[in-house]
Amino acid sequence: MSKPAAHHAPLPVALADLEAAQTRIASHARITPVLRHEELDARAGGQVFLKAEVLQRTGAFKFRGAFNKIAGLDPAARARGVVAFSSGNHAQAVAAVAQIFGVPATIVMPSDAPETKIRGTRHYGADVRLYDRVRESREAIAAGIVQESGATLVPPFDDPAIIAGQGTAGLELMAQCGGALDAVLVPASGGGLAAGVSVGVKARSPLAEIWLCEPEGFDDWGRSLRAGQIERNIALSGSICDALLAPQPGTITFAVNHALAAGGVAVSDDEVLAAMAWAWRNLKIVVEPGGAVGLAAILTGKFDAGKKRVGVILSGGNVEDAMMMRALSEHD
Amino acid sequence: MSKPAAHHAPLPVALADLEAAQTRIASHARITPVLRHEELDARAGGQVFLKAEVLQRTGAFKFRGAFNKIAGLDPAARARGVVAFSSGNHAQAVAAVAQIFGVPATIVMPSDAPETKIRGTRHYGADVRLYDRVRESREAIAAGIVQESGATLVPPFDDPAIIAGQGTAGLELMAQCGGALDAVLVPASGGGLAAGVSVGVKARSPLAEIWLCEPEGFDDWGRSLRAGQIERNIALSGSICDALLAPQPGTITFAVNHALAAGGVAVSDDEVLAAMAWAWRNLKIVVEPGGAVGLAAILTGKFDAGKKRVGVILSGGNVEDAMMMRALSEHD
Repeated sequence: MSKPAAHHAPLPVALADLEAAQTRIASHARITPVLRHEELDARAGGQVFLKAEVLQRTGAFKFRGAFNKIAGLDPAARARGVVAFSSGNHAQAVAAVAQIFGVPATIVMPSDAPETKIRGTRHYGADVRLYDRVRESREAIAAGIVQESGATLVPPFDDPAIIAGQGTAGLELMAQCGGALDAVLVPASGGGLAAGVSVGVKARSPLAEIWLCEPEGFDDWGRSLRAGQIERNIALSGSICDALLAPQPGTITFAVNHALAAGGVAVSDDEVLAAMAWAWRNLKIVVEPGGAVGLAAILTGKFDAGKKRVGVILSGGNVEDAMMMRALSEHD
Repeated sequence: MSKPAAHHAPLPVALADLEAAQTRIASHARITPVLRHEELDARAGGQVFLKAEVLQRTGAFKFRGAFNKIAGLDPAARARGVVAFSSGNHAQAVAAVAQIFGVPATIVMPSDAPETKIRGTRHYGADVRLYDRVRESREAIAAGIVQESGATLVPPFDDPAIIAGQGTAGLELMAQCGGALDAVLVPASGGGLAAGVSVGVKARSPLAEIWLCEPEGFDDWGRSLRAGQIERNIALSGSICDALLAPQPGTITFAVNHALAAGGVAVSDDEVLAAMAWAWRNLKIVVEPGGAVGLAAILTGKFDAGKKRVGVILSGGNVEDAMMMRALSEHD
């Protein structure tokens, strides 16, 4: 299923962009560990390399892209502040980076975002504007703030600097896992992480298949990659994977993922809860629902890791206590 | 408070023993990451390096010592099997290592050990013998099994090979933290981890103070180090720190820690629960009560990390769901 990219037009994000991002974020982002677990390998019948982005600053990979984007702004623009819309992890990342640079941040967040993510965003000193995920347009609200304040919009995914920043996780994974990979499973919402990781992984391991993992019922990536064109999700809410509810692939992320990815894998909320409980009990880490979709794909066998070397991005760990309790009590 | 060891008799465990252990365990133990957290540093007023032994195989540092000990047995002795007594983490480690070597393991465990640790030990194929922590002697039960079966006792702490194995965590910490440390905080029960880590840390950073962290009411190490002789705990149960309830320091571990350690720090169960909740929310890792005492000492200010570079061993993550829920609900 792996597609060589050579015959395509140049992609909007290249390895050099990821390498520049890696240099730019090195002073502030963490190099997150790659975890191994012998029983997971035995169960999967292969070797699984778990990139623990839950241990990234702000608890998710989003810090990488936000830092790369904001560090690359010219200082005068940066001083006017930044704006972002996000269900939570991008929000916290932009707020934290703005705090590092000492510039104001306004974050437009859905009112049904986990309380822990809203609290986390305010904690970094950002001004939080709540909106209704179904009735209001976050893009329109953010655009209004940009017009009023002269602040710069930091998009959640459809931006080359954001994609390049997220892709540093893929470069790190390849440096840490000691050889080529047969596949990498990446949680996908807007597709920025998947696009960046694809560029990084394919540069080092050209035959690796990239699989975008998403919640059942929100499988816009799986359908879009199959159809060869962008398809929307029908529902806008209703999965516990609050980080994976973007309504459709981005334009730039679709171009990259269509060129580089193998396809999509969809997992149910119950499978996600089981993966969260498994990670808690066996890896001793906290993974949020959207961060656990790749692991769920392995544990359920929906992705067959047999005889393969497989990377899995555990993309974030910002989960409400109650949701983790639910995972533990439903999967004892 | 730091004491040079030069004028003492040679210690029973030397740097060379740790280096040999490091080579021996390399194929099976994990090099656990050292985590940083910007807000922890800000709160402590220093730099804190958290050695995440919760991510070690079997969920605790104990795998290091058990592997070093069992790998060093002559093959004929090893084939007759191994016996251990343990509240849980050493039990799981010995069982897991015995399984790797394909030899039988009998583990003597207190009947009030966390269910997760008993289940974990059985999971690795060991024969578990439960005993009453207050009325029965685990040493006597284990000695009886040794006599019957010809198996080798793998002591929980008072053994040079065990101490050298645990000390590899200290060598790793020094290699990972990028320079000398001013202090290292180590959870202490029998004192094997503290003794091994002391040897490893002092070899690389001779002026580092080693502080043994323990639960209030079970501060045998603090009292023993002050008195210059081994003192017992009065109670045998009653702290949530189930991994830190050894009745008194070991003979070998006392010799090492008396020569190398600065003193003890005691924290309350409530302070431990707060540290567990803090680690869960901010580090995104699961730390068991006994594993969190060093972090609790930092967070409470009972150990003043101001302007210091301080290592903290997060020694294990094998905790019941209910105990973690309690930490989260009592420390919101």
